[in-house]
Amino acid sequence: MPLAPRAPYRLTAIQVRDLLRNNTLTVEEYARSLLGRIKERDSVVKAWVYLDPASVLRQAQALDQVPHDQRGPLHGIAVGIKDVMNTRDMPTQFGSPLYEGHQPGFDSSAVAILRAAGALIFGKTTTTEFTVTNSGGAGLGPETTNPHDANRTPGGSSCGSAAAVADYQVPISLGAQTGGSIIRPASFTGVFALKPTHNAISPEGQKTFSPTFDTLGFFARTIEDLQLVTDVFDLKDDEPPEDILLSKTTVAMIKTPMWDSAGPGTVAAMKNASTVLEQIGIKVEEVPFPAEIGDLETLQQMQKALMYREAQVAFLREYRINKTGLAPEICRLVENSSNFTNREALQAADKYAGLRPLFDELAARYSAIIAPSVIDEAPLGLENMGSAVFNTFWTASAGLHMPVINIPAFSGAHGMPIGLSLITGRLRDQHLLHIGKALSGPLMTGGGWKVGTTAAHSTPYFRDS
Amino acid sequence: MPLAPRAPYRLTAIQVRDLLRNNTLTVEEYARSLLGRIKERDSVVKAWVYLDPASVLRQAQALDQVPHDQRGPLHGIAVGIKDVMNTRDMPTQFGSPLYEGHQPGFDSSAVAILRAAGALIFGKTTTTEFTVTNSGGAGLGPETTNPHDANRTPGGSSCGSAAAVADYQVPISLGAQTGGSIIRPASFTGVFALKPTHNAISPEGQKTFSPTFDTLGFFARTIEDLQLVTDVFDLKDDEPPEDILLSKTTVAMIKTPMWDSAGPGTVAAMKNASTVLEQIGIKVEEVPFPAEIGDLETLQQMQKALMYREAQVAFLREYRINKTGLAPEICRLVENSSNFTNREALQAADKYAGLRPLFDELAARYSAIIAPSVIDEAPLGLENMGSAVFNTFWTASAGLHMPVINIPAFSGAHGMPIGLSLITGRLRDQHLLHIGKALSGPLMTGGGWKVGTTAAHSTPYFRDS
Repeated sequence: MPLAPRAPYRLTAIQVRDLLRNNTLTVEEYARSLLGRIKERDSVVKAWVYLDPASVLRQAQALDQVPHDQRGPLHGIAVGIKDVMNTRDMPTQFGSPLYEGHQPGFDSSAVAILRAAGALIFGKTTTTEFTVTNSGGAGLGPETTNPHDANRTPGGSSCGSAAAVADYQVPISLGAQTGGSIIRPASFTGVFALKPTHNAISPEGQKTFSPTFDTLGFFARTIEDLQLVTDVFDLKDDEPPEDILLSKTTVAMIKTPMWDSAGPGTVAAMKNASTVLEQIGIKVEEVPFPAEIGDLETLQQMQKALMYREAQVAFLREYRINKTGLAPEICRLVENSSNFTNREALQAADKYAGLRPLFDELAARYSAIIAPSVIDEAPLGLENMGSAVFNTFWTASAGLHMPVINIPAFSGAHGMPIGLSLITGRLRDQHLLHIGKALSGPLMTGGGWKVGTTAAHSTPYFRDS
Repeated sequence: MPLAPRAPYRLTAIQVRDLLRNNTLTVEEYARSLLGRIKERDSVVKAWVYLDPASVLRQAQALDQVPHDQRGPLHGIAVGIKDVMNTRDMPTQFGSPLYEGHQPGFDSSAVAILRAAGALIFGKTTTTEFTVTNSGGAGLGPETTNPHDANRTPGGSSCGSAAAVADYQVPISLGAQTGGSIIRPASFTGVFALKPTHNAISPEGQKTFSPTFDTLGFFARTIEDLQLVTDVFDLKDDEPPEDILLSKTTVAMIKTPMWDSAGPGTVAAMKNASTVLEQIGIKVEEVPFPAEIGDLETLQQMQKALMYREAQVAFLREYRINKTGLAPEICRLVENSSNFTNREALQAADKYAGLRPLFDELAARYSAIIAPSVIDEAPLGLENMGSAVFNTFWTASAGLHMPVINIPAFSGAHGMPIGLSLITGRLRDQHLLHIGKALSGPLMTGGGWKVGTTAAHSTPYFRDS
């Protein structure tokens, strides 16, 4: 009989699943280990806005009673839920004082699907108010810190979901991205994340910011764990992913039109990635942005015009009910203080729609695209959530709707993590995971960042004996 | 002092608003009148899936206590809510046995905004299961009848919302359209309806079917009442609508590529509309569909590919939790039994996105477009909800996202109503209402249908003396 792990909280979801399957671990033991970890670290990391240990243990005990042949693919796996998604048994507060103690009483679609797959819905993770972030430093955010340096931001808006996974408080968490709210905190906290193809997972029961851009995704410490969750949501490509032959693999390195903004950490990471991939026989090509994207400044204005218009619709309810309880930034969105016209918003919607097939075609010419995830390491201070400038084109932000994985392979001048984005065409999420598995090993080895390399982890990780 | 109306239930929302303002009527009196009307008619029309008279009267009494200077623009106006939108104080059952007695406990955005404006949220109106309709005659629908002929369908999926307004049970109701679920029942029951620009009103808290197509809209018995509700949702054009000079007004009559499907009632209505408009000096031009729309059959397949793919995502939750409780049609959607590929769905999404600016340009060349709303009168039988073929291009269905008003001006061979669709470019909803006000008078006069012309209304309508 194998020995039980000394610290189950350190396990990946796949490892936990296997130990639960062979009765080496119970869900309750696992839950107690995670709760212990959180108790030890919460005063520093502050990743949770709601967590009820008694309720977690009750869920865990109930899951232990489920016969093996009735268990789902996520049986007993702890998942943190960004507090912009409804949960039937926990408050959902959207980071907003307007919703203090708000109990929707009904799960969001994604939470319900996770529960049906047997997941242990652990608690609610912190978010900026309604996921709005402000790189200028306004106080929309929670007090969550970066687990690798408590003086630095974990990145927003999925602050708690990224920090909790990075700090071994849960193996998986849900986040939501409108601008850079998944890929940026994943990069800042050094974890993997998948922002799937837009609307490939239902956002129902999740607070809307901008429907063209809002995308639900998840964080994990390995790409295999991302795969596990992706499959629960039934994401399928038209063809099953092909076996990866490194000699036939091609990667487009796209520095994006914002390359001038990249800091030394990201510049080095892109260079490092090219070198590592070429060393293992992959053809790496530096590829310019398609000319159709047009002038960068114009495009950024377009993005704002569309996103702000959609936000105006999304927050009218809160504005009408109690605008004094809304952050001034959000009031200004509803009031359209930027004076964007309908015409500008429609032009933007149409422009992005026209770019989508072009970028799919570009992506189809390579095994994957690699681009910066962030400007550089997580900045100092908790109020500045960091710039989403590099997420603008690859994420919901540009309305390109392509799936993106953050690979947390690199580190910067202060030893903080830096990720790169692995990207492919729409609805090829399985291909992206597949190529991600092949490339992330060499990149992680060559890049210097080890997931979990924190002061809090001076002891070695889980060993199975 | 003006005399109180003998039958407040017959009033339009604007009339009620004015009587409440000058204290000629109380909200409670008004509510009792509507409840009386419903009591008298419900065994035939069956428009409500949930209606609690005691709770309605409590709301009404509370509204009567609000001081005049704190009353909102919809103060005391009764609104029926299609039962796919969450309500905090009523069950929300989506026409599905899976959700019998389901209490979301939290209003949808639209319901919350109506409440904040003082509306009296009256009850929940019937819908087909999750708004899915089947013109083939499967049993997805409620037992709601057409108020003008109980042997005929009111049209789906917003069955109850259309029937309740047509039958004077409420002056306003909310509906939702993915295919033809607002415009079709409005035409079949002879009422006005506005399907606004896509996503100009937040669908948050409303069951998702297909996000590219789902659109929230409303029914009323006058265009002025549609205006009242539109303003509550803050829909604004870039420029305020211009005064209408009939001599400078131009209308494009577009028969659409489905003209061969049109029955004699719709053929006559289109002809009649041209004649009436020309008689009042309007320039009427028959305009072909833009060639870019391509082959009709291909486009219809594309629409299915996209809508079905989105439905697959939307209903995965229910399928995972209890697929035996889902209609077989919906199971087949989740199982992708039509074998549509991702590629087909993306091609469709991109195709429709490319058509949107073309149709905006076309619309900008005329004061408005007129097109068929339906094939003909409401068919006999309750199971056949009627074809949405004509809604396909002008509504969410085609992803054109343009605002549409149904004008119920005409009648068919059996004396049942037939509407025509008035259409303009995206985010010009105020212009559409404005031109609709100018054109609907002459069309209603010339067309032969009188809103409220039913056997149940042999006595004259409200008179204010």
